[in-house]
Amino acid sequence: MFGEIKGLNEECGIFGVFGHTQAGHMTYYGLHALQHRGQEGAGVVVSDGEELKQSKGEGLVTDVLDEEQLSRLVGHSAIGHVRYSTAGGKTYENIQPLYFRSSTGSLALAHNGNLVNASKLRQELEETGSIFQTTSDTEVIAHLIKRQGKKPIIDRVKHALNELEGAFAMVMLDEHQLIAALDPRGMRPLSLGKVGDAYALASETCAFDVVGAEYLREVKPGELLVINEEGVHVDRFQQPKDRSICTMEYVYFARPDSNVDGDNIHSVRKRLGKTLASVAPVEADVVTGVPDSSISAAIGYAEASNIPYELGLIKNRYVGRTFIQPSQELRERGVQMKLSAVRKIVEGKRVVMVDDSIVRGTTSKRIVRMLKEAGAKEVHVRISSPPITHPCFYGIDTSTSGELIAANHTVEEIGEKIGADSISFLPIDSMIEAVDRQDQSPNCGHCLACFTGNYPTDLYDQSIPPHQKEQMIGARS
Amino acid sequence: MFGEIKGLNEECGIFGVFGHTQAGHMTYYGLHALQHRGQEGAGVVVSDGEELKQSKGEGLVTDVLDEEQLSRLVGHSAIGHVRYSTAGGKTYENIQPLYFRSSTGSLALAHNGNLVNASKLRQELEETGSIFQTTSDTEVIAHLIKRQGKKPIIDRVKHALNELEGAFAMVMLDEHQLIAALDPRGMRPLSLGKVGDAYALASETCAFDVVGAEYLREVKPGELLVINEEGVHVDRFQQPKDRSICTMEYVYFARPDSNVDGDNIHSVRKRLGKTLASVAPVEADVVTGVPDSSISAAIGYAEASNIPYELGLIKNRYVGRTFIQPSQELRERGVQMKLSAVRKIVEGKRVVMVDDSIVRGTTSKRIVRMLKEAGAKEVHVRISSPPITHPCFYGIDTSTSGELIAANHTVEEIGEKIGADSISFLPIDSMIEAVDRQDQSPNCGHCLACFTGNYPTDLYDQSIPPHQKEQMIGARS
Amino acid sequence: MFGEIKGLNEECGIFGVFGHTQAGHMTYYGLHALQHRGQEGAGVVVSDGEELKQSKGEGLVTDVLDEEQLSRLVGHSAIGHVRYSTAGGKTYENIQPLYFRSSTGSLALAHNGNLVNASKLRQELEETGSIFQTTSDTEVIAHLIKRQGKKPIIDRVKHALNELEGAFAMVMLDEHQLIAALDPRGMRPLSLGKVGDAYALASETCAFDVVGAEYLREVKPGELLVINEEGVHVDRFQQPKDRSICTMEYVYFARPDSNVDGDNIHSVRKRLGKTLASVAPVEADVVTGVPDSSISAAIGYAEASNIPYELGLIKNRYVGRTFIQPSQELRERGVQMKLSAVRKIVEGKRVVMVDDSIVRGTTSKRIVRMLKEAGAKEVHVRISSPPITHPCFYGIDTSTSGELIAANHTVEEIGEKIGADSISFLPIDSMIEAVDRQDQSPNCGHCLACFTGNYPTDLYDQSIPPHQKEQMIGARS
Amino acid sequence: MFGEIKGLNEECGIFGVFGHTQAGHMTYYGLHALQHRGQEGAGVVVSDGEELKQSKGEGLVTDVLDEEQLSRLVGHSAIGHVRYSTAGGKTYENIQPLYFRSSTGSLALAHNGNLVNASKLRQELEETGSIFQTTSDTEVIAHLIKRQGKKPIIDRVKHALNELEGAFAMVMLDEHQLIAALDPRGMRPLSLGKVGDAYALASETCAFDVVGAEYLREVKPGELLVINEEGVHVDRFQQPKDRSICTMEYVYFARPDSNVDGDNIHSVRKRLGKTLASVAPVEADVVTGVPDSSISAAIGYAEASNIPYELGLIKNRYVGRTFIQPSQELRERGVQMKLSAVRKIVEGKRVVMVDDSIVRGTTSKRIVRMLKEAGAKEVHVRISSPPITHPCFYGIDTSTSGELIAANHTVEEIGEKIGADSISFLPIDSMIEAVDRQDQSPNCGHCLACFTGNYPTDLYDQSIPPHQKEQMIGARS
Repeated sequence: MFGEIKGLNEECGIFGVFGHTQAGHMTYYGLHALQHRGQEGAGVVVSDGEELKQSKGEGLVTDVLDEEQLSRLVGHSAIGHVRYSTAGGKTYENIQPLYFRSSTGSLALAHNGNLVNASKLRQELEETGSIFQTTSDTEVIAHLIKRQGKKPIIDRVKHALNELEGAFAMVMLDEHQLIAALDPRGMRPLSLGKVGDAYALASETCAFDVVGAEYLREVKPGELLVINEEGVHVDRFQQPKDRSICTMEYVYFARPDSNVDGDNIHSVRKRLGKTLASVAPVEADVVTGVPDSSISAAIGYAEASNIPYELGLIKNRYVGRTFIQPSQELRERGVQMKLSAVRKIVEGKRVVMVDDSIVRGTTSKRIVRMLKEAGAKEVHVRISSPPITHPCFYGIDTSTSGELIAANHTVEEIGEKIGADSISFLPIDSMIEAVDRQDQSPNCGHCLACFTGNYPTDLYDQSIPPHQKEQMIGARS
Repeated sequence: MFGEIKGLNEECGIFGVFGHTQAGHMTYYGLHALQHRGQEGAGVVVSDGEELKQSKGEGLVTDVLDEEQLSRLVGHSAIGHVRYSTAGGKTYENIQPLYFRSSTGSLALAHNGNLVNASKLRQELEETGSIFQTTSDTEVIAHLIKRQGKKPIIDRVKHALNELEGAFAMVMLDEHQLIAALDPRGMRPLSLGKVGDAYALASETCAFDVVGAEYLREVKPGELLVINEEGVHVDRFQQPKDRSICTMEYVYFARPDSNVDGDNIHSVRKRLGKTLASVAPVEADVVTGVPDSSISAAIGYAEASNIPYELGLIKNRYVGRTFIQPSQELRERGVQMKLSAVRKIVEGKRVVMVDDSIVRGTTSKRIVRMLKEAGAKEVHVRISSPPITHPCFYGIDTSTSGELIAANHTVEEIGEKIGADSISFLPIDSMIEAVDRQDQSPNCGHCLACFTGNYPTDLYDQSIPPHQKEQMIGARS
Repeated sequence: MFGEIKGLNEECGIFGVFGHTQAGHMTYYGLHALQHRGQEGAGVVVSDGEELKQSKGEGLVTDVLDEEQLSRLVGHSAIGHVRYSTAGGKTYENIQPLYFRSSTGSLALAHNGNLVNASKLRQELEETGSIFQTTSDTEVIAHLIKRQGKKPIIDRVKHALNELEGAFAMVMLDEHQLIAALDPRGMRPLSLGKVGDAYALASETCAFDVVGAEYLREVKPGELLVINEEGVHVDRFQQPKDRSICTMEYVYFARPDSNVDGDNIHSVRKRLGKTLASVAPVEADVVTGVPDSSISAAIGYAEASNIPYELGLIKNRYVGRTFIQPSQELRERGVQMKLSAVRKIVEGKRVVMVDDSIVRGTTSKRIVRMLKEAGAKEVHVRISSPPITHPCFYGIDTSTSGELIAANHTVEEIGEKIGADSISFLPIDSMIEAVDRQDQSPNCGHCLACFTGNYPTDLYDQSIPPHQKEQMIGARS
Repeated sequence: MFGEIKGLNEECGIFGVFGHTQAGHMTYYGLHALQHRGQEGAGVVVSDGEELKQSKGEGLVTDVLDEEQLSRLVGHSAIGHVRYSTAGGKTYENIQPLYFRSSTGSLALAHNGNLVNASKLRQELEETGSIFQTTSDTEVIAHLIKRQGKKPIIDRVKHALNELEGAFAMVMLDEHQLIAALDPRGMRPLSLGKVGDAYALASETCAFDVVGAEYLREVKPGELLVINEEGVHVDRFQQPKDRSICTMEYVYFARPDSNVDGDNIHSVRKRLGKTLASVAPVEADVVTGVPDSSISAAIGYAEASNIPYELGLIKNRYVGRTFIQPSQELRERGVQMKLSAVRKIVEGKRVVMVDDSIVRGTTSKRIVRMLKEAGAKEVHVRISSPPITHPCFYGIDTSTSGELIAANHTVEEIGEKIGADSISFLPIDSMIEAVDRQDQSPNCGHCLACFTGNYPTDLYDQSIPPHQKEQMIGARS
């Protein structure tokens, strides 16, 4: 969360509200709370009951929307989106919500997650006359809805959603209603809230806190919620399948003040840290976390191990628009940018460095070196999740990495490569135990694909490195 | 630190470097690390040995300086400044360093702190022909230096510094040398470091960590350091007086990864929190800190009290340039901006809310209300410093407030006003004990004026509210 | 041209180039020359033979494209567009070229003119499954092309163009070819040029002068030019109908240095002014033109009448982005903005004020009053075109005005309303005579609909005010 | 005027108003009208009778001042300045008005023109303790005023002005009065006007037209006007010397709608063109002017010679902020930027190209080549002023050029160098005759130094190329 340093990125946050006189402003504040889920672009579409109006652009919510624009977005319902984009350059077209005009009524869509059969669907649509202006999955969904002809919009949406395979949490808006849908495995989080007489939807509950909304419940796998003047109509487009919510939401992505499935993320992470302390103890003088996402786990580790928690690493928050990167020469001479090690804290100490995950290992290596250069006598790396061995195809951008350090190296090798004096990952079972709510049955349905290769869906034509494919086949059989 | 929410603001950070081929870039990174000391304006002046070049502007360092400008600032020495301004509007003129051109050589000055006899000096200078283009103390100092006629620059600087009364940590740059000076009481922090063969000066040591510099020592009260091709020449413009370093640097302003007088700020704050736990214990379920500056004290309180530290309050870091404040109506309906309470953490709980200080009380009141609205059963406010009863005239902008809640109310009244179930401040003696390094003699010289009214200097014509003046007279007699 | 003051606006300019190593830059300069045809938005799409890349945005070409973006737009062919938009607000989606991605190859389109059957086509497409993300005619054309299935692209384009009714000058770009098309009546200008071995297309020939291209010929009504590695292939999608090129291009829109049909616009306008002098002479002391578009006609009037041409009206060219309009109070007290009358020139004089057209009459009224307030003894208004009595549906934004002063008032009434001492319009026949090239047969095919109501095409569902509809029916029968 | 292309630039425009409830807005519009005199920076200072407020910045008036800032500048009197700067880079400090704060009252100054003894004065001031933050002459004047001690402000201003040598038209503002002064030779224009009950001052009368002010009279050489609540008090700081108003104001700088000494600039330029036609006739087909400043002279030439005036050269007005210059390669291949030749007009024609002056000759050469490349059979260059052989030290930035083509070449050589088929300059006597008002005695006092080397003042330490110095000595003896 909060502008992390590593190469692991969530691809979106969505928000919706129905029945509020200031729906545009509410969405602005809601998206602002979800900003950690995407900083590349943001957009809002509002309805005043007669027409839709939109505003979107590249950058942070607060950069994209100014007073003038927000004052145009008058309406009683709205949806919004914050976007993380993998590709560089100007990508205005892909910024969501996507807004489709039609003489029989318009429709705007915002989507979090990733479809695995998007290419296949896109090709079929193209062959029968659809044209595409974006490269986003969302445009595919819009075409599928449109193709259902003159049936009522809800029927068309349900039909279209049944064509999709993969992870999708969606909000849709037309002139008269706000629609929410979650894929049948519930792979992405989506919550329903209430603020006064209005209803709200958000990828994370932290957005509810910011707009003063009360949490009602999670949107359930396969559900279709239709919110209009009459209230919330609970419908379903498909029977739920095995629940497979993304584990990395707990471990890394979600804001610590959000709740997923009713459990507070900060608390979950503290439990992960405590568990880690019990399964991977070490003699040390200080515990420090890699800011920001690992702070909670580090505090948990410190509490359980009775080693004091200290601020051994600090992050500079003032990163303006045009930060000038230090030259190679300056970097080699010790000029650091976002993160620095605190010499006074770590000098001569045995340091437990708690992090939530290791993707490529380059960041971990850099941090270990920083700590050593700042005088740490020993650096013991403790990771509050298992090794990531497989790419994600459901909305986390490890799918393109191919360079997952744990896919090709043992834990010992990883420790050596990053220069740690010791290294431990949290075993899968321990992670599940810590993540699960104590009042629930064990493993109530997490996607563990990135740790195991057990992908909960068919993968169609996703490009998986051959050696991993084999592993997967083994893993899945 | 880090863009705090309360009405207590440091007024500057300064940085200097001599003997580095990329002096301009180093200053850019150094100032970036000091950004928490002022976000209103920034400036850099470099010397290439023949002439001075400057670049400055309103906003963050990363907004003020882009690649193009930084590439112009070629030189082997530089000084820089980040500024907090009390007045609104366009105040370009006051952005430092101030740069004075002269046919016999130019001089740039950057200054942290506040003079108490600036008005008097300004008036005297005006009466004898000086004209002023800014409202800053720094221009007064420049005039004093210029008035010394044709004497060598060092003599003129020393003479001028002896005219000043108040707090001043300064860096000055001419074509050939970098000069640093600290007021005879050492009221503001200023450290000397070394990076390769170059020397660096900074308001806080966190800037050294960022540019890869090694800490050498504090600049001492009354010292004048002249750094040129021959190295550091240690000189003195005045005998030191009783050391009076600002206590609020420890409690609130400095970055947690900085060291002051060799002691790490995060560690000091943890000690403050631990001491607070022992002198003001309370039965409670969770400890939470007000981000960002009170986190360390909260962790200390939690460690010492064995009450778990949790993330009960969270701050949204993504505050872009044009954040649109919620309307009064939305605020009343619960829309929050920068800070939110985490319902899941505090609901039904007895919460210890640790904060570092209370200025006007309005922020504390808002936070207590937020916690209660999020379901906290009890909120126990614990402040890791004593009540602030007197304005500061040495560079902290409480001097204009006149609304210090503790100046007019007892601790009990404050607790009532902010809605706390209980409230405690850290007693002065306990604070001094925690702040002092364990290897030093007790109270090695802190300014405690804002807590006691014991101002270490004459105050000249500073405008003190009458009732406080009386208090002060009493306090000082 | 050049940011005119009146309510009469052209809706686009297009440019294309094939076979130039710096196609992106050429398009940048070409569009810059066409900037007077639209200042609301601009875009460029280039092809490097393998893929298309685009960049577009709101504002002037020089605002939309910076060095960084232009350096990305590497390719050997490109099309571009400058846009005038009637609606306010953010309209990014409608900025052209529109760029459609497809697995079988992409296509970008840029269009100048207005279709009269766009709504009908859009509705038909929607009913059979097409979805629309913009409100522009161009998206309709793209859908029509896509719907032609797997036929070769040229066949599909020809088929689609045959569905269109109205005015359209178009350039299209795919990975391998640049396509140009002009509606069967040739209602909008489009010229073909050559620059080295490369070919260029432009709405006006002034763009050729700027990029060093040589004019070859006009694109002919109904033609389809396909430009690829093998050169220019001349094809046709429809037989030409009666030529109906927009007369207002000559009178008002085109830049004076452009040629239409081989005739220089400045020369045409001088002829209009000379003719006007002969049909509507007046005793006067000075002739002045309303800048910028009427200067040529005024010089012609002066030459023919032997009344000296003087600078009685002047326009301030420095209109930055955020020009603050004078308050009503200041306006009433004489504060002028863009245009001012030159007292010294007009004081005590009988002034001939030459303008090219009158739309709503408000601007004319203001200018006459300015001249009188500056001391003009008499103001004789001479208009170098006939009264505009009917809206345009082919790309000039009078279609929405409904407030055409000449639709509801006689010439005498207009003169009275605007406060002129006398007023004359150029009769249609005189205008045609002046516009026609002297080496051509009379009225070689101009659209005169805005003067006569004789619309050269069916109007479908265009919204014409009832009383005008009657007039038109009369006029057309 | 209007963003000219050649290397000859005026260095400032000034405006002032007293007694108007919207003095800040009036100054905004006044400066906007004077924008052609400087586009690098702009500033406004207003007084509300109690304090001065300022706003200034780099760029156009409309870029520097937005609604928010203008709304802060509330007051009944104001002065403003537009600036042309020779040096590149960020030069905020030099932007005028300069504003000096003082406990006994503040003073703001804005200055058009150039002092020749500024360096000498600056040195004397520095030696006696003054410090300088800018490199502008205006700061020197401010110091001189301040040095006069406790005398009334008017006395101090008069004393200071008597120290100055060179060209200066100035406006000054304190809390209670607006002061205007013109050097004893009246080398720069400055006019007094009236708008309602308020008074206005401006470098050119076009600013009066824009704000609805009535022209009263010129400020006279050596005059000091003090405008306050009681009206205009006419004073004098020095007896006038021989009038020496800059001739280039008539020929080139002033806006055509301005009047200087009661004579309209456009009319003067037409007279220059007519005279040029009579002294330097040529057989030709068309006359064209180099936009924008030579259009009036070209029209005069055409009228007198009976050769038709045509638009052979055209300038693109849409030059945004970040215009990307064509690469050398594109320039060589004919890509043009600001100016283009109109092929249709000049092809096969004998062209008279009227320009107002030749400085370095590079622009003229480029334009002649453009005309030839566009097909002109012959290009006859006619210049409506004499050859510029000497640098200007009074505010026109030829002082640094050293590359005046006419300083080192005969007229014939110039013609050859620029590729003209013939070339003629207007002789000095003919110029004076045309410039002089017909109701005045001949040569009522123009500075002709750039044509003759007869500098009306001592030059002190100005750096004149040696060979020119000799010429001057010869010329002046």
